[in-house]
Amino acid sequence: MEPTRIGVIGSGQVGRALAAGFAAHDHEVTIGTRAPAENDDLQSWAAQHAGVAIGTFAAAAEAGEIVVLATRGTAVEEAIRTAGADRFAGKLVIDATNPLAPDPATGGPSLAVGHTDSGGEIVQRAIPDARVVKAFNTVNAGLMVDPGLPDGPHPMFIAGDDEGAKATVADILSDFGWKAFDVGGIERARELESFVVLWVAIGQRRGAWDHAFTLVTPSGVATG
Amino acid sequence: MEPTRIGVIGSGQVGRALAAGFAAHDHEVTIGTRAPAENDDLQSWAAQHAGVAIGTFAAAAEAGEIVVLATRGTAVEEAIRTAGADRFAGKLVIDATNPLAPDPATGGPSLAVGHTDSGGEIVQRAIPDARVVKAFNTVNAGLMVDPGLPDGPHPMFIAGDDEGAKATVADILSDFGWKAFDVGGIERARELESFVVLWVAIGQRRGAWDHAFTLVTPSGVATG
Repeated sequence: MEPTRIGVIGSGQVGRALAAGFAAHDHEVTIGTRAPAENDDLQSWAAQHAGVAIGTFAAAAEAGEIVVLATRGTAVEEAIRTAGADRFAGKLVIDATNPLAPDPATGGPSLAVGHTDSGGEIVQRAIPDARVVKAFNTVNAGLMVDPGLPDGPHPMFIAGDDEGAKATVADILSDFGWKAFDVGGIERARELESFVVLWVAIGQRRGAWDHAFTLVTPSGVATG
Repeated sequence: MEPTRIGVIGSGQVGRALAAGFAAHDHEVTIGTRAPAENDDLQSWAAQHAGVAIGTFAAAAEAGEIVVLATRGTAVEEAIRTAGADRFAGKLVIDATNPLAPDPATGGPSLAVGHTDSGGEIVQRAIPDARVVKAFNTVNAGLMVDPGLPDGPHPMFIAGDDEGAKATVADILSDFGWKAFDVGGIERARELESFVVLWVAIGQRRGAWDHAFTLVTPSGVATG
């Protein structure tokens, strides 16, 4: 994709991986954090990543032609309010979050929402004039950009209501070493987020976190 | 696994694939249908599959040391009642069903239950003295036995509360050309069933149905 301006809301592992990835692929990135001046750790990190500026959530949302949501899933609505919901209007918004909430009954992973609603739908309702695409939420931060997986590219499952927005995300994913697999409207975030519960359960069993779901057929990896 | 007696409840595509697979792997199989005498199609099918007898749901449940549930997911509770819930007591029960119900809003696939409950949990509650293992529900009938997938064996995700039962299912899966991947207790059926919504959505996009979810890592297929 042609270089553009990217805003990333959230500066944890996922936000940093995607900010670095977009910068490495020649985009101009603003990574947003709640209190930029106080975030020494993020400043050290950004100093090592050319093309990434630090700002508030509002500054990142304002700067981006494309805005990436990369906060904790249960914090994303509040992050949108802090950034200013109006700043997302008309933009492509990539929702990489998962509404993970530990299950007190099992101590294991679970989701705060599911089955008949999802984090992706909550985000789309919070910014109805944005074109939301769920993507990147099913893989580890370390695999999001240039994953180096054998027999690739592998499918990255995406969902959203705007076909043009999904085509743009497909271009980005192609640059990042993935092949977008469009599974439908934003309501399919229900299942894409459900993946993550298994992903965590599988990581707990493996003691390793570099796994990604993919699709196999008798003739090889399926990407379309 | 040593040859044993298998009962299969349900004689559609999945029931037939698993019945034929168990018979091909030297087990003695009874496939159950609601009205055996009237099911000419099943009789023709069974005539071509040595080692498979036809019976009622009750006869299949009674005959099996291991009982496989392979009805429509929304019909499984009624099928258990018809078979007689007591007949499952103490047995290993493999739940291959999915509580699929079309979504009237989108016309697309969706589940009758999810997020905080699942078909697998409903089955376990219906036969509390059985040892229920969710398995086979994430792949096409045509791939369930000896799938012939490249770079295999691939993981078959299973869930259940009884470790011994899961170990037996792992043996069966090994015979069938898969590697069991235990994702946890029966409540993880929530996510294994959620897979199926994506599986259908992906099939609709592909126009083909021979895909299975698997796990890739930088060093290859992950099976444990």
